[in-house]
Amino acid sequence: MLQHAPTLTRLVGELKKLPGIGERTALRLAFHLLKSPQNLGSLAEALVQVQERVCACSVCFALTEQDPCPICTGSRDSSVICVVETSQDMLALERSNAYHGSYHVLQGAISPLHGVNPDDLRIKELLTRIEQGTVEEVVIATNFTVEGETTALYLARQLKPLGVRVTRLAHGIPLGSDIEFVDPATVQWAMKGRSEL
Amino acid sequence: MLQHAPTLTRLVGELKKLPGIGERTALRLAFHLLKSPQNLGSLAEALVQVQERVCACSVCFALTEQDPCPICTGSRDSSVICVVETSQDMLALERSNAYHGSYHVLQGAISPLHGVNPDDLRIKELLTRIEQGTVEEVVIATNFTVEGETTALYLARQLKPLGVRVTRLAHGIPLGSDIEFVDPATVQWAMKGRSEL
Repeated sequence: MLQHAPTLTRLVGELKKLPGIGERTALRLAFHLLKSPQNLGSLAEALVQVQERVCACSVCFALTEQDPCPICTGSRDSSVICVVETSQDMLALERSNAYHGSYHVLQGAISPLHGVNPDDLRIKELLTRIEQGTVEEVVIATNFTVEGETTALYLARQLKPLGVRVTRLAHGIPLGSDIEFVDPATVQWAMKGRSEL
Repeated sequence: MLQHAPTLTRLVGELKKLPGIGERTALRLAFHLLKSPQNLGSLAEALVQVQERVCACSVCFALTEQDPCPICTGSRDSSVICVVETSQDMLALERSNAYHGSYHVLQGAISPLHGVNPDDLRIKELLTRIEQGTVEEVVIATNFTVEGETTALYLARQLKPLGVRVTRLAHGIPLGSDIEFVDPATVQWAMKGRSEL
């Protein structure tokens, strides 16, 4: 039947490109959308609007609809920059409500295996921001993965000569977890980083 | 951050309306689309095309881009009609390659609990097709659920007085399953429907 509806085949193909969505889910989503033409229309419209309006902030490279973004222009503490890999990571930090400085989105992490070199990231732009002289601390919040750690070490080496304080997020046991089931490497980090009670 | 990108919030909201997609997945999909503007554009375009071109066949009510659909106008055996609940069910039957007749999509199943009565389905249109006199057999392929069974029994009662043969799909052990793990009701059906070897 689908071969008689090429637009439907195309929609299924487009949905399949999304992460975590296979053939069956794509079909289910497509039929669901067909059953509710209103949702279908507003999803299409939302996609077009996002495409037209969302861009990267020219200062911190976070996704935004105003350039520079409200965090860069607002009343945030501009003497601290938190460096993250992606806008999603920045969103997670914002949700925590624990940080009130500015951000810098690298748009990725160093990963020679995937052909991502330091030059492919927004590192040059970060260094330029720091050279302007108002930044006192850079909090590195790259992911705690091989790529993230590599990026963190690379950044630290680039940043320290600029006379800025370089810190990074603590590593340890996550909230709500049973130590029995935490992986040994995390326990090691937690032990190394233990503090006075 | 999202509060500064209302179009992104809207896209996440639209994605969340899809079945099986929660807040986190919607966010992940939205960011994924933002990273590949080409995919974003073609998904939006595919949605618009589907909305413009896909309709229900005026004969069998399957989703199609030509009316009547290629199955209704093609060289299929029009003396047999297979009655299904949805276009997806029809697609599953087509995939099996076991049926070469025509179809009738009810667009749902009788479910008083959900306010779906026989009048809400395409039953009147099915009866009209049969009254034209060329149909010899109606294969009922509604789902094997309370709603599907109710619909099957209702249809059988409506169809038999019209002098047409009414059959339904066999119920039993599905292919590849270990009898140990098949639910008792299915085993009962399989036992009742056993055949000579």
